[in-house]
Amino acid sequence: MSETQRLSWLPFLKQPVPAGLREPVQVAAFELAQGASCPARAEIGPGMEDEAWELLPEGEGWIVRGGRRGVLYGAYALLEALHTGRKPWSGLQKPFYADRMLNCWDNMDGSVERGYAGRSLWFENGGFAYDPKRIRQMGRLFASCGLNVLCLNNVNVHWPAQRLIADMLPKLAEFAAILRPFGVRLMTSVDFSQPMRDGVPTADPLDSRVQDWWNVCADRVWAAIPDFFGFLVKADSEHRPGPFTYGRTHAEGANMLARAVAPHGGKLVWRAFVYNCQQDWRDTKTDRPCAAYETYAPLDGQFDGNVILQVKNGPFDFQVREPVSPTFFAMPRTDLALELQLAQEYTGQQIDIYAMPPMWDELLQDLPPQTVKAVAAVSNLGRDANFFGHPFAALNLFAFGEYAWYPCVRREQIVRDWVRLTYPDLPDGDRAALAALLLDSRHVYELYTAPLGLCWMVSPNNHYGPSPDGYEYQAWGTYHRADRSAIGIDRTGGGTGYAAQYPDALRARYESLDTCPDELLLFFHRLPYDYVMRDGRTLVQRVYDDHFEGLARTEAMAETLEALPLPSPDREEVLERIGRQRTDAREWCDIINSFFRRFSGAEDAHGRRIYP
Amino acid sequence: MSETQRLSWLPFLKQPVPAGLREPVQVAAFELAQGASCPARAEIGPGMEDEAWELLPEGEGWIVRGGRRGVLYGAYALLEALHTGRKPWSGLQKPFYADRMLNCWDNMDGSVERGYAGRSLWFENGGFAYDPKRIRQMGRLFASCGLNVLCLNNVNVHWPAQRLIADMLPKLAEFAAILRPFGVRLMTSVDFSQPMRDGVPTADPLDSRVQDWWNVCADRVWAAIPDFFGFLVKADSEHRPGPFTYGRTHAEGANMLARAVAPHGGKLVWRAFVYNCQQDWRDTKTDRPCAAYETYAPLDGQFDGNVILQVKNGPFDFQVREPVSPTFFAMPRTDLALELQLAQEYTGQQIDIYAMPPMWDELLQDLPPQTVKAVAAVSNLGRDANFFGHPFAALNLFAFGEYAWYPCVRREQIVRDWVRLTYPDLPDGDRAALAALLLDSRHVYELYTAPLGLCWMVSPNNHYGPSPDGYEYQAWGTYHRADRSAIGIDRTGGGTGYAAQYPDALRARYESLDTCPDELLLFFHRLPYDYVMRDGRTLVQRVYDDHFEGLARTEAMAETLEALPLPSPDREEVLERIGRQRTDAREWCDIINSFFRRFSGAEDAHGRRIYP
Repeated sequence: MSETQRLSWLPFLKQPVPAGLREPVQVAAFELAQGASCPARAEIGPGMEDEAWELLPEGEGWIVRGGRRGVLYGAYALLEALHTGRKPWSGLQKPFYADRMLNCWDNMDGSVERGYAGRSLWFENGGFAYDPKRIRQMGRLFASCGLNVLCLNNVNVHWPAQRLIADMLPKLAEFAAILRPFGVRLMTSVDFSQPMRDGVPTADPLDSRVQDWWNVCADRVWAAIPDFFGFLVKADSEHRPGPFTYGRTHAEGANMLARAVAPHGGKLVWRAFVYNCQQDWRDTKTDRPCAAYETYAPLDGQFDGNVILQVKNGPFDFQVREPVSPTFFAMPRTDLALELQLAQEYTGQQIDIYAMPPMWDELLQDLPPQTVKAVAAVSNLGRDANFFGHPFAALNLFAFGEYAWYPCVRREQIVRDWVRLTYPDLPDGDRAALAALLLDSRHVYELYTAPLGLCWMVSPNNHYGPSPDGYEYQAWGTYHRADRSAIGIDRTGGGTGYAAQYPDALRARYESLDTCPDELLLFFHRLPYDYVMRDGRTLVQRVYDDHFEGLARTEAMAETLEALPLPSPDREEVLERIGRQRTDAREWCDIINSFFRRFSGAEDAHGRRIYP
Repeated sequence: MSETQRLSWLPFLKQPVPAGLREPVQVAAFELAQGASCPARAEIGPGMEDEAWELLPEGEGWIVRGGRRGVLYGAYALLEALHTGRKPWSGLQKPFYADRMLNCWDNMDGSVERGYAGRSLWFENGGFAYDPKRIRQMGRLFASCGLNVLCLNNVNVHWPAQRLIADMLPKLAEFAAILRPFGVRLMTSVDFSQPMRDGVPTADPLDSRVQDWWNVCADRVWAAIPDFFGFLVKADSEHRPGPFTYGRTHAEGANMLARAVAPHGGKLVWRAFVYNCQQDWRDTKTDRPCAAYETYAPLDGQFDGNVILQVKNGPFDFQVREPVSPTFFAMPRTDLALELQLAQEYTGQQIDIYAMPPMWDELLQDLPPQTVKAVAAVSNLGRDANFFGHPFAALNLFAFGEYAWYPCVRREQIVRDWVRLTYPDLPDGDRAALAALLLDSRHVYELYTAPLGLCWMVSPNNHYGPSPDGYEYQAWGTYHRADRSAIGIDRTGGGTGYAAQYPDALRARYESLDTCPDELLLFFHRLPYDYVMRDGRTLVQRVYDDHFEGLARTEAMAETLEALPLPSPDREEVLERIGRQRTDAREWCDIINSFFRRFSGAEDAHGRRIYP
């Protein structure tokens, strides 16, 4: 099957978007012509906002009316409504978040950091190397779910990615031109110390030579790409350069860059992922989840207006289960972006099925959508024929776009829509079974992996599969400190004090054993193995039960999938991967159970086999 | 300081060996002329065996008389005697082992597998790339300690190393010519499946097309290099191809290759490092140390006369402490080689000081030297200016050569000689202090690392630093199975039965808790933490004591070295590395102690700090 036939959730758009179309409205017309089952036409609504749209009935069909980009979003919305059988939305539609960003961790050697869908779609051998047809197909996927910013290179800026905003700008502009008809603007990750490669003797953000260098750089970038979105920066984190080298704050560092891009209407996106990655494991005072808040909360109000501070959903790093990051509540005078990770780094690596909408629903219960001004996600895309490694991983990109447009969307609806769009020929009952399986997949994954919010029981470095003590004595600040009596870190006021970073209601909920959710119990509390949970089971018995259940439900998922008449090659890919997931789930189940039994000495109450 | 000035244990030979010398006797004359403090001349003794030599007094000086290569060994022996102040040996000298082999794990991309002294001395970018002066200096080092076979490529044969015995033979012959005047013959590691790269549809050793291919190959190799030593093979091990693929035994595989090289007088060296590297950790019946014996002992007597079966010293893989491999006692009708590892893969990586002679002395107490017919060691050489990463690591190559020549040599003498030769200007007291430090270094390293023969508490993959559970749930067959009650594997008759592979006396010694050496206690026995050792301490207290002692003695080593007036740049290199060793020792001490405390709950009897 050729690449262009892998159309993901848009199987009804079989004709690739032609290279000649320059404006979103042209793409809209092209897509409606081939995809609509009724008369439909697209038109620019005079005076309408860029991204706004509305659907107007006209005879047996529809007019899609919208702003420059909105008309394309409206066209896809109509097509999706028609192909799912839903009633098209009425009324003027606008995105909840103006900036809906995808961060790609693509390196210019063609590798993708934490990429699980093959090599980079656009880099190879230190330069651009892509099939424009695939890039246009990707642009179509983005526009169909409303994503509008693409950061195309890794936040860890490895040489020669610095050249993207220097001598490789013409190539960057060519790439931008391919995505422009889809309403997608480009962003690049930049190296905070890049001026020093050009002979500036420092990267001190308060040094005028540094400011001048970035000013000239920005002039050059926007001259080449007038609708360029901005720069993304990872600074002072995991050995990246940053303002700390010069005794400057992250506000000073970000503002310097922000001032360079401001005259062009550019944004400066600064990642709040800063912690001590060379911690001494003996040190029980330093607690890594505290780090982002400690670094950034004092800076609230100091960032320029075009700075976006991008904060990961949780205080660690995209674990299966983390509480919401307290930094979100501590910076009311700062434009924050929520950062999610579609790449399944710690969540099964696009081998194990892990649909994210249920996780985001839970997150948004604690994080009201208006708390942040923008959203970003680490991409799960790659050069694999199906773009995503696992065919079902496409759901996470689709769903991210939908949440970014309208965060109050229901997870059930997103999953149902994606299944309906992706597999139009699947019988109703099978579609329902698949949707149920996807909606349950994150819970299943959580059941068989690190229990009760412990995090980090994963194999070091590659982050796939269990290694319960793998990070225990390392420098990453990721400890559970299991011994023969107890496990977990006390993060209440009596412990590291992390919980005090939350607003009172959340703090009280997490600190009390009566109210702390079971799933976060060992994130916030250190507890003995024989601690009695609210349901009367001991903690260790709960761990055993969850793990046996997670394995059993994975087996059941495999049976469901075996019986599901998915089209080829999705069926073959899905069955191959569920086989690996079964192996993975069995490893997790047996190793975590053994680990807890070795420490606790507790036998399973139901006599199931736990290896010695 | 230039490379040629780093002369290791031969600082009195400041003039490099000229390129024009072709015969060992010419090199001998050259070295005596510059290195002897008295009249000395070299001559071929008519009828003397190739490697034999004797020193004959002549006036105020000496005649070195020997066979073709022996004359050079004799010259170095005389020089070493003169420069250490020892009385030159009298009588006819001959090597105890005819084949004294160094195995280099150099890849043709220039990397060295498990190399800790820089990149390859002769490979880079897929081909040969070397400084002939450095190769001659290396040849001088080899000859001075009597090594006579060099296998120049990794036993894991990665492409394009297959080309060494094909189109790159002219380059291989050039390299052989450089080392020939030093009495060193070349060997290559070969890929058992190489015929298949040439269109042979199988590598089945009983297929005549395979035999024919290797026959032609051997003809070609020996035509290019008439004194070529032979081939080294790692088969059916860690994903290497081998005869198991075709349902053939390792005798059938080895003999096929042996028959190809036999007409040329070549040797076929077959490594006995075969085990299941995809073991299920749940499986408590399979015990990796049993593997070599189980595979090879039944084949005793089936190998052709020019096959050497190369067996690692212990049943695992070069751990700090292992019992002698039982395979040595099980194959009286097979020519066995003892394989040691000079590269400090699991023993400090040429950062931590680890002098091996005490380890070999212990080994030879259990393994009478005549049990094996040859010796081999994995090289610790690399492109670093000092060849060895750590200046003191040179001792291990020197000592290996000395043991290989005469295994009854005393460790104290070897270490004293090496110190005296290497640092002639060091005052007597300092030389004694350094020798004592070196002689103690293995014991110190053992004290602060995995205790009591447990093995494998090392960081997975890179093998430096502690990770007590790092290999615990993996597929490598390397488990300690610690729980809250006990630790270790029962390898007696009541357990995996491994001990039964030994001759009765050794078996009885290891199986009885009354006689099993403390250092191997947890290799052979599973014991509770409160097991009372022969000295009255509990097992866990012994672990704590050892680890605190190991750390303290490392600190003391650092102080000794700080006070030692070593010449530059050795001093700077040694002090830099002992700093890293202190950090390493502290990590080991604290992590192993914490690990035992977390499981056992035992406090230190002396109230020293063990982290929680």
